[in-house]
Amino acid sequence: MKRNLLIMSKMPDYFVDLADANFNTFKLWLQKNEDDYLNKIKNDIEAIAVFGGYKITPQLMNSMKNLKLIACYGVGYDAIDTIAAKDLGIRVTNTPEVLNDEVADTAIALMLCVYRQIILADGYARNNEWLNGEFPLTKKFSGTKLGIVGMGRIGSTIAKRAEAFNCEILYHSRTKKNVKYKYYGDLKLLAKEVDTLCVITPGGKDTEKIINSEVLDNLGNNGVLINVARGSVVDEEALIYYLENKLILAAGLDVYADEPKIPKRLFGLKNTVLLPHVASATVETRNAMGQLVFDNIKNHFENKSLISPVV
Amino acid sequence: MKRNLLIMSKMPDYFVDLADANFNTFKLWLQKNEDDYLNKIKNDIEAIAVFGGYKITPQLMNSMKNLKLIACYGVGYDAIDTIAAKDLGIRVTNTPEVLNDEVADTAIALMLCVYRQIILADGYARNNEWLNGEFPLTKKFSGTKLGIVGMGRIGSTIAKRAEAFNCEILYHSRTKKNVKYKYYGDLKLLAKEVDTLCVITPGGKDTEKIINSEVLDNLGNNGVLINVARGSVVDEEALIYYLENKLILAAGLDVYADEPKIPKRLFGLKNTVLLPHVASATVETRNAMGQLVFDNIKNHFENKSLISPVV
Repeated sequence: MKRNLLIMSKMPDYFVDLADANFNTFKLWLQKNEDDYLNKIKNDIEAIAVFGGYKITPQLMNSMKNLKLIACYGVGYDAIDTIAAKDLGIRVTNTPEVLNDEVADTAIALMLCVYRQIILADGYARNNEWLNGEFPLTKKFSGTKLGIVGMGRIGSTIAKRAEAFNCEILYHSRTKKNVKYKYYGDLKLLAKEVDTLCVITPGGKDTEKIINSEVLDNLGNNGVLINVARGSVVDEEALIYYLENKLILAAGLDVYADEPKIPKRLFGLKNTVLLPHVASATVETRNAMGQLVFDNIKNHFENKSLISPVV
Repeated sequence: MKRNLLIMSKMPDYFVDLADANFNTFKLWLQKNEDDYLNKIKNDIEAIAVFGGYKITPQLMNSMKNLKLIACYGVGYDAIDTIAAKDLGIRVTNTPEVLNDEVADTAIALMLCVYRQIILADGYARNNEWLNGEFPLTKKFSGTKLGIVGMGRIGSTIAKRAEAFNCEILYHSRTKKNVKYKYYGDLKLLAKEVDTLCVITPGGKDTEKIINSEVLDNLGNNGVLINVARGSVVDEEALIYYLENKLILAAGLDVYADEPKIPKRLFGLKNTVLLPHVASATVETRNAMGQLVFDNIKNHFENKSLISPVV
């Protein structure tokens, strides 16, 4: 007999097809009235698959008496109350590792695009402005000092790429890691030391707005901020103020505090590169993530070990 | 007594300031009638400083009886007839090495922007289209096969960076080099084998339109072309046809056959990233190039060895 899986949010076809073929699937995002639907099926649901960032409350978990697994599609699981899950005996999985390369690529792309003003240069070429003179000189990225905030799996993958650009790597994290790069326990001191601060720390309460005015002050008016972590990590109001007043040089952002809303004041700022949270958004990587979500659920239903458990 | 230097084309302030302080400078680009001016000063000129790509004919060289050095600002010197220069006893210098990192950075930026559609994604975010749904998935760059056409100083610098993205490196050049990457004597075979073809070969007659229909056919409809060499290396008409008809996937271009004119048909193509020849265009690198132009001229006037002679 097929087991019952609730897919809460729209997920890529690759995963949905796998799930449909192997489980009895319930698709919340296709329902007109989600609350009515949940109320009807709540006792049937044995596992949930959900996009990272989609909030799952303790109330919802508690309402599903047979729920034993929440499988997140994404590496961040800050939208899930894992303490409540643990209390209720619900396991949680995420999709680490398979997206390290992609997110690191995005981080480097943001750095290069910010330093070299690639978006503006493409617009300049495309508008034929070159006929009136050369595009203004930009700033060299190679050989700059890069401060990574969060030296986890993705952080060290970013470091590997940046080293090939002759960047000096420094980092901040809650604890010193077994890596060759210089550790800064004080984020403000790190910001003062580097040209670029690249944030790739987990979201959640522990890191909320750790990139604040003080840190941006230390980053200074030649400093660049890159965020491929979570919008919550940055004090967005402060960042916009620093960008508008050129108190920092520029920012490359993939994430925002209230996605998919991006603060409108960012739109007109030429010293930004803005991406709509696409750090892992390639066909290849999203398929690999979907496969890992599926494999975790399958293992769970077959009483095998979870591949990437969080709780 | 100060020696006489003709600066033919507009050059960065850094160089012009150095030149003004040390030499007796003649500034062609500031003149209303360049021909009259050249005619008046031709016998005074002992050295020329010129932007790479600015054409210097044998006639012009021949008209300046005291000309003994042409110092190019740029690594490419294909706009200078070096055979004629040699015959006339005129030395030629360029600015190699100091721009390797910058051009390699530009090549990688183009690859990432093409594969991950960074320009379109930034536009999508900035136009608030994200509110209506996710940006479409793109294509993974890390781990792809990269074919480099021209394994010189810049080619190997590109290779070093691409290796940090787990790319497999293959290359074509006139002769096999002492590098660890797989060599292809046949450019068509290389194009068939790789995901991305990155052109960084010298310009001039030997490489004119070597990227032609046959090569693009072999690159195929999942293939990406990157050109950070010279526009002359690519058959631009063929390339546009292949892009318009999606016979190749995409192109990232920094150079064009008739700069600063870019073929208008490219402007509307979403499968392109277009830069206005900015591969070395940062303050840091352009200053380093200016310093090297100056140092070559200074050494020449002081009868010391040229630092980076071509002829």
